[in-house]
Amino acid sequence: MEKYVAPVEDMSFVLNNLLDIDNYLKSINNKELSFDSLKMVIEEAGKFACDELDTINQIGDQEGIKLENGVVRMPESFIKAYKKFVNTGWFSIIGEKKYGGQDLPLSAVVIINEIMHSTNMSFATNNMLTQGAVELLESHGNEKQKEFYLPNLISGKWSGTMNLTEPHAGSDLSSIKTKAIEKDKKFLIKGTKIYITHGDQDMSDNIIHLVLAKLPNAPEGVRGISLFLVPKYFLNDKGTKVKNDIKVISVEHKLGHNASPTCVLNFGENEGAIGELVGEPNQGLKAMFTMMNNARLNVGVQGLAISERAYQKALSFSKERIQGYSLNKNITGPVEIIKHPDVKRMLMEMKSQTEAMRGLAITTGNFIDKYKNFPNSPEGKECLFISNLLTPIVKAWCTDQSIYITSLGVQVHGGMGFIEDTGAAQYYRDCRILAIYEGTNGIQALDLLRRKLFQENGETYKKVLQIIKNTAELAIKSENNNLKEMGELLFKSLDIIEDCSVWLIDKYEENPEISAAGATPFLNMFGWVLGGWIMLDSANKAQLIILKDKNNKFAKEKINTASFFCNTYLPLASSLQNTIKKSFYALENFN
Amino acid sequence: MEKYVAPVEDMSFVLNNLLDIDNYLKSINNKELSFDSLKMVIEEAGKFACDELDTINQIGDQEGIKLENGVVRMPESFIKAYKKFVNTGWFSIIGEKKYGGQDLPLSAVVIINEIMHSTNMSFATNNMLTQGAVELLESHGNEKQKEFYLPNLISGKWSGTMNLTEPHAGSDLSSIKTKAIEKDKKFLIKGTKIYITHGDQDMSDNIIHLVLAKLPNAPEGVRGISLFLVPKYFLNDKGTKVKNDIKVISVEHKLGHNASPTCVLNFGENEGAIGELVGEPNQGLKAMFTMMNNARLNVGVQGLAISERAYQKALSFSKERIQGYSLNKNITGPVEIIKHPDVKRMLMEMKSQTEAMRGLAITTGNFIDKYKNFPNSPEGKECLFISNLLTPIVKAWCTDQSIYITSLGVQVHGGMGFIEDTGAAQYYRDCRILAIYEGTNGIQALDLLRRKLFQENGETYKKVLQIIKNTAELAIKSENNNLKEMGELLFKSLDIIEDCSVWLIDKYEENPEISAAGATPFLNMFGWVLGGWIMLDSANKAQLIILKDKNNKFAKEKINTASFFCNTYLPLASSLQNTIKKSFYALENFN
Repeated sequence: MEKYVAPVEDMSFVLNNLLDIDNYLKSINNKELSFDSLKMVIEEAGKFACDELDTINQIGDQEGIKLENGVVRMPESFIKAYKKFVNTGWFSIIGEKKYGGQDLPLSAVVIINEIMHSTNMSFATNNMLTQGAVELLESHGNEKQKEFYLPNLISGKWSGTMNLTEPHAGSDLSSIKTKAIEKDKKFLIKGTKIYITHGDQDMSDNIIHLVLAKLPNAPEGVRGISLFLVPKYFLNDKGTKVKNDIKVISVEHKLGHNASPTCVLNFGENEGAIGELVGEPNQGLKAMFTMMNNARLNVGVQGLAISERAYQKALSFSKERIQGYSLNKNITGPVEIIKHPDVKRMLMEMKSQTEAMRGLAITTGNFIDKYKNFPNSPEGKECLFISNLLTPIVKAWCTDQSIYITSLGVQVHGGMGFIEDTGAAQYYRDCRILAIYEGTNGIQALDLLRRKLFQENGETYKKVLQIIKNTAELAIKSENNNLKEMGELLFKSLDIIEDCSVWLIDKYEENPEISAAGATPFLNMFGWVLGGWIMLDSANKAQLIILKDKNNKFAKEKINTASFFCNTYLPLASSLQNTIKKSFYALENFN
Repeated sequence: MEKYVAPVEDMSFVLNNLLDIDNYLKSINNKELSFDSLKMVIEEAGKFACDELDTINQIGDQEGIKLENGVVRMPESFIKAYKKFVNTGWFSIIGEKKYGGQDLPLSAVVIINEIMHSTNMSFATNNMLTQGAVELLESHGNEKQKEFYLPNLISGKWSGTMNLTEPHAGSDLSSIKTKAIEKDKKFLIKGTKIYITHGDQDMSDNIIHLVLAKLPNAPEGVRGISLFLVPKYFLNDKGTKVKNDIKVISVEHKLGHNASPTCVLNFGENEGAIGELVGEPNQGLKAMFTMMNNARLNVGVQGLAISERAYQKALSFSKERIQGYSLNKNITGPVEIIKHPDVKRMLMEMKSQTEAMRGLAITTGNFIDKYKNFPNSPEGKECLFISNLLTPIVKAWCTDQSIYITSLGVQVHGGMGFIEDTGAAQYYRDCRILAIYEGTNGIQALDLLRRKLFQENGETYKKVLQIIKNTAELAIKSENNNLKEMGELLFKSLDIIEDCSVWLIDKYEENPEISAAGATPFLNMFGWVLGGWIMLDSANKAQLIILKDKNNKFAKEKINTASFFCNTYLPLASSLQNTIKKSFYALENFN
C-alpha cells in the first residue's frame, strides 16, 4: 500500500531558502528555535501523520459519523488517534507559552497543518477550528476567559467550533436571528445554526462553541452582532459539570469530508444555552474575523494539503502501473505509465502547482508572523497589509486549484480512479467543500477587489507587485537562460495585472458591478502571478545552490518545475485580461 | 422541486439555423422527415425524459444496484422506466427501418441522447451502448446475425455491451488474454473482462455482449484480436433458452454513475461461453472501433448533457435563493443571488460552454450523416474525415469541461451544493467517469495528434481551419461591432492554432515525445477554437434573425452568450501556445 511521505525537503527549502527563517528567528530574539529544530519537528509531524492519520483516512470516509441519541459518534479509530494527537502534543504547536502552547511561528504551523490535512483532512479540521478559537480568545477574550479556556483548548483536551451560518444567512451574516439575553451575568442563547463543522463529536472532553448572536435592541445589520462563547459542558455554581442546552438536530450527508461532522445545532430549545460574551457587545463580527482570517489561510492550506496527497498517490501509481508502449523507439516493451509524456504532464501540473501553493501559503504565514512580532512598527503594519491582501488569494486560488489537481489525480489512475477503493476519488470529493466554506471563493474575490485592492489607498497591492518585480529583475539578470525566460514571462504578466488593477479600481468607482464581474478572473490572475513569483523566487534561490553544488538534484528539479509552471500558467494569467474587462457587458444582458 | 426542461429552442436553432436540416433532408431525398417533425420528436423526448427519467435519477444514485446471487438488480423504478422507454419507442430512434428502426439522422439522435443523459445518465448509458452494438452489427454482422439480433436490439427488448478491458489491459488492448476456441461452428470464450458497463442488469430480456478475444495462433498485438458476440441467453439446438457460461464476479463501488452497473465478468469458467464471430478473424479491433467511435461522440454528448442539467439546476437555485445585497445602489433589500455579478459569471460560463458543446456535437453528428448518405462521393469522404477529426475533440473537450461546469454547479449552490440531497453533487460525481471511459482524454489527445492531424497528409485539419476562417470573415464584415470583435478574436486564435499544428507535425517527425507532451493542451486549444467557431456561427445566424425581427429575444441572447464565450475562452486558447511548445523540455527532466 502506498504511504504518505511528508515533502520535508521542499518544506525546508521554503523555510530556509525562501524565508531565511534563522535570520527571522534572530530578528525576534528567539533563541529556542532554529531552522534545524523546526525541521526536526516537521519530520516528526510527517512520521506521526503517516502512521496515525493517513492510515485511517479511508476508514473515516467509509464509516463516516453517526448521530446516536443526540450525540455524534466518530469512528473508533478517530477517537484513538485524537488521544495520541493530544498526548504527543500536536495540538499545542500554537498558543502562548503561559497557557501551555509552543507558540511556533505561523510559517511552521502552516507546514505542520499541511501535513495533518494531507493525511486526514476530516480529522485535522477539528484541530484547525480549535487553532482559530485559541487565536480568537488570545485576541478578544478577557483574562478570566483566557485562563480558563486557553490551556484546555491549546492542549486539545477541549476543542473549538465556529457558529455563524443560519438557514437564511450564509454569505450574508447581517440577517442572523440567533438571540442572546443577559441573565445573572451570563447570557442565554437561543437560535439555530447550520453547517457547524465538528459541531459535535466524542473525541474531546468538551466543545467550546463560538457563536454569533444578537443582543436585545442591537443595531441592525452587521453592527449589531455579538460574539458568545457557549460550551457544550459548563460548571455550575456548585462546580458540577452540566450539559448545556444545545441539541444536535441533524448531521449532513455530504459529497465528502465524511468523517468531519457537519451539524445543525439548536441552541436554547429549553431554558436557553448558557454563554459568555467575548469582547465588546456588537463587535462580534470583527472578533469572529480574527478566527475567519486564520481559518481562511488554513483552508488554503487544506487545498494545498489535499493536492500534495493526491499528487503522491498519482505519482506512486504511475510508477507501478504498466500500460502501453513508449513513443521513444529506443524503449521496447510495455512501460510504466509515468513514461508517457501526457501522464508526465498531468503529474507535473500537480507537482508544480502544489509547490507554488506551498511557497505562497508559508510565505503568507511568515508575513503574519512578522506583523505579530512588530505590530506597531511601520514594517510590521506593512506585513499585516500584505498578508491581508494575500489571504483571500491563498484561500480561493489554492482551493480552486485543488479541485483541478485532485481531478487530475483521478485521471492518472484511469478506470481505477473512479473506483472508490483506490482512494483517489476521496480527495476529489473531500476537497470540493474548500472553495465553499469560510467564505465562498466568490466572496474572497470580492474581498480582494473591494477591500484589499483599496487598502492603504492602493499602496499595498503596488508593494506586492514591486516585490514580484524585484524577483523578475533578478532572474532576468541571471546567466541561466531558463531563469531569464521565466523572468520575462513574469514581467509581462506584471504589466497586465497592473493594467487590470488600475482598470478595476477605476471602474469600481464608476459602477461597482462592472468590477465585480471581473473579480474572480482577477483573483485567479493574481494567484497565477503569485505562483509564478514563488516559483521564480525558488528558482533564483535554487540557482544559488547550484553555483556551489552544480549537481544538486533538488535545486535542478526546482528550476525545472518552476520553468514548467511559468511557461504553462503565466500565459494563462495574461489571457484573463480580456475576461476581466469584458465580462460585465455580456452579464448585464443575462437574466 | 426544480424540473428539467429540454432546451428545445437552442436545439432547434442548431438544427434549423446552423445545419439547415430541411435542406439536408431534401438533399438525401428524405420526404418523411422535416425540421418540424424532428422538433416535435425532440419535444416529446423532453417530456418523456422529464417525467420518467429525471424523477428517478437521484433514486438511482442513492439506491444504486445490488449483486444478488450472481445477478445484478437494478432499482425497481429503473425496471419500470425501461419498459416505458421500450414501449414508447425511444430505443428505436436509430437502426435501419427493415429491422424496426426509425433511422433518424445522427444530428437528431445526438439531441435526443442529450435529453436522455441530461435527465438520467446511469439509465441512458444502457441505451447508448445498445446504439453502439446496433451500429456495429449493421456494419460488421453477417445477414443471419443482423436478422436475428438487430430487431431485438433496436426495439430495446435486448441490450448490448462492450467488453474490451482486462485487468492488465486498459488503454493498451494489444495484450488481452481472453481466448476463443472454435467448436461445432460456434466459439467457446474464456477470460475475464473488467469495467463492463451495464454488464448485467434485469431490465432487458437478454444482453448481447460484444467481446474482444484471441483465436488460437492469432498474430501478436492488435492484429490478432477478434470480435465475438456472446449473449447472456441463447437458444440451444432444441430452441430452448439457455443461460450462457458468463458469471458476474463483482460490481464496482464507484465515485458516481451509481445506477449504471460496472461489472467484472468471467466468461467460460465452466464449459466456455458460447459466442459467434463478428466480421473476419483478427479484424475485431477495427470492428470494435465502429462501436467506439459512436460511443466517443456519445460520451462527449454525455458531457454536454450533464453540463446542461447542472446549469438548469444552478440557474433555478440562483433565482430562488435570496442572499446579500446588490452592488447596484438602486436595488435595496436582499436579492436573489443571480443578481450578483459573480454568480451571473458562473452561470454564464456554464450556459455558454454548454451551448458551444451542443452546437459542436450536433454538427459532428451531421458530418457523419452526410458521409453515411454519400459514402463514396468526395464530399461524403470529406465529411467522414472531418468527423474523424472532430470526434476526439468532442469526446475530450466536452467531458473535461463537464467536470468544470458541474463543479461550478456545486459552487453556485454554496454550502447546499456539498450536501448530497441537493442533487448538484451527483452531477459532479457522475461526470467524472466521462474523461476516462471509451479511451481516456489523454488517448483522445494522442489520437488527434498522431492520426487526425496527419489524416489526408494534413489536409483535413486545414479544411476545418478554413471553415472556421469563413465564419470569422463573415463576422468581421458584419455591421454589428459585437460580431466584428468576436471575428477578430477568432482570427487571432486561428493563426495560433495553425502555427501550433505546423509545429506539432514538424516536431512529431523529429521526436514524437515532444509533440505528445503538447497533445492535451493542443486538444484543449482546438476545443476552445471550435467552440468559438460554433458560437460565432450561431451569432452570425442570430444576426440574420435580428435583421428580420429586431426584438427577437433568443437571437439577442445568443449573440450575448457568444460574445461572453469568445471574450472569455478564445484568449485562453491562445495562451496554450506556449504550453504546447515548452512542455516537453521540463517534462523530459521529470522522472
